[in-house]
Amino acid sequence: MSAWLPSLITATPEEGYDLAIKLSRMAVKKTQGSDEVRARLRAIYENDAQALVAVSHVVAVNFATVAAANGYWR
Amino acid sequence: MSAWLPSLITATPEEGYDLAIKLSRMAVKKTQGSDEVRARLRAIYENDAQALVAVSHVVAVNFATVAAANGYWR
Amino acid sequence: MSAWLPSLITATPEEGYDLAIKLSRMAVKKTQGSDEVRARLRAIYENDAQALVAVSHVVAVNFATVAAANGYWR
Amino acid sequence: MSAWLPSLITATPEEGYDLAIKLSRMAVKKTQGSDEVRARLRAIYENDAQALVAVSHVVAVNFATVAAANGYWR
Amino acid sequence: MSAWLPSLITATPEEGYDLAIKLSRMAVKKTQGSDEVRARLRAIYENDAQALVAVSHVVAVNFATVAAANGYWR
Amino acid sequence: MSAWLPSLITATPEEGYDLAIKLSRMAVKKTQGSDEVRARLRAIYENDAQALVAVSHVVAVNFATVAAANGYWR
Repeated sequence: MSAWLPSLITATPEEGYDLAIKLSRMAVKKTQGSDEVRARLRAIYENDAQALVAVSHVVAVNFATVAAANGYWR
Repeated sequence: MSAWLPSLITATPEEGYDLAIKLSRMAVKKTQGSDEVRARLRAIYENDAQALVAVSHVVAVNFATVAAANGYWR
Repeated sequence: MSAWLPSLITATPEEGYDLAIKLSRMAVKKTQGSDEVRARLRAIYENDAQALVAVSHVVAVNFATVAAANGYWR
Repeated sequence: MSAWLPSLITATPEEGYDLAIKLSRMAVKKTQGSDEVRARLRAIYENDAQALVAVSHVVAVNFATVAAANGYWR
Repeated sequence: MSAWLPSLITATPEEGYDLAIKLSRMAVKKTQGSDEVRARLRAIYENDAQALVAVSHVVAVNFATVAAANGYWR
Repeated sequence: MSAWLPSLITATPEEGYDLAIKLSRMAVKKTQGSDEVRARLRAIYENDAQALVAVSHVVAVNFATVAAANGYWR
């Protein structure tokens, strides 16, 4: 199986942000392995204001890590 | 489509704070693609004390990243 | 309109802490523009133990940013 | 009024931890100025498992700031 | 008993991410020692959208630590 | 009374993790001084999936501090 996380280095901040989203979702996937259950739950949190803010929080923490890894693309 | 996040570098702390808000909202947008659903949910969390504090928390985490990227505008 | 956040640099840790509180409140203000709604919600969270702890958490994250910006006032 | 936060520098990690607790409580005090209301709310969260964990979380964030300020007392 | 955490250094970001998940689960194990209770609770949070986001948040915080320890595998 | 936190420096990452747990519990102890109340509350959160994840989150924040203090035991 090819590596899902070969590196934290990205060409642009946008790619870095997408990687932060991928990192955030991978923990859910590694905790709940069933695609079917995750799809059902996603339909719940996609329509829940508090859950969406919580998702945004996790992305923010992962983005901080990716941004530091990339020297803030300076 | 032009890049929504060309750089983390901003001229002033205020622009940095606005970028932190943009980063916080983008994760919600990338999770819930429907403008209509997001508008409906925004009307909920804009009037919920706990949700507003949670939004402020996400902005604080993203502002920490943007501020570090800009060397704290020293 | 004069800048509300001209700099992260403060003379003392106390001023830095007050700036962290200002940063925490600004995200709420930029999300909920109505002074009247914010005043109504403030009356709620000021009397809610869990909300006050959550507010203190946001201030802590912003204070970490301001303290780092000021070299911890060493 | 003497400064409540003259410095982040402490002689020992323990004093640093106590300062982190003081920082955590000050945000509550600056948000809810009434000693009487804070005492009433404290009686609630002191007996609430989730609230105590949330308090511990805020202290952890502030302790990270104080520890960094003190070069981890190395 | 062999050390469960001999080092924070990993060969790849993926191994680092798995270590972050291990770190996140160990705190639960050290707080709730019963395998049977943890299995029962896991069946709950694996099917709870909010809990899965909260798990992802803890992994993100631990991943930030592991990534910094490994110099972001640069 | 001997110091409960003489130093953040530990010989191994495992000892560092145990120190992070100790730091997390001390804030609860300093907020709720009654051993009897804490024991009662512990029986609650030990069997609550959401509370256990929240405890793991606090340990992760404190572990980040201890790991940085120890130069990640490199």
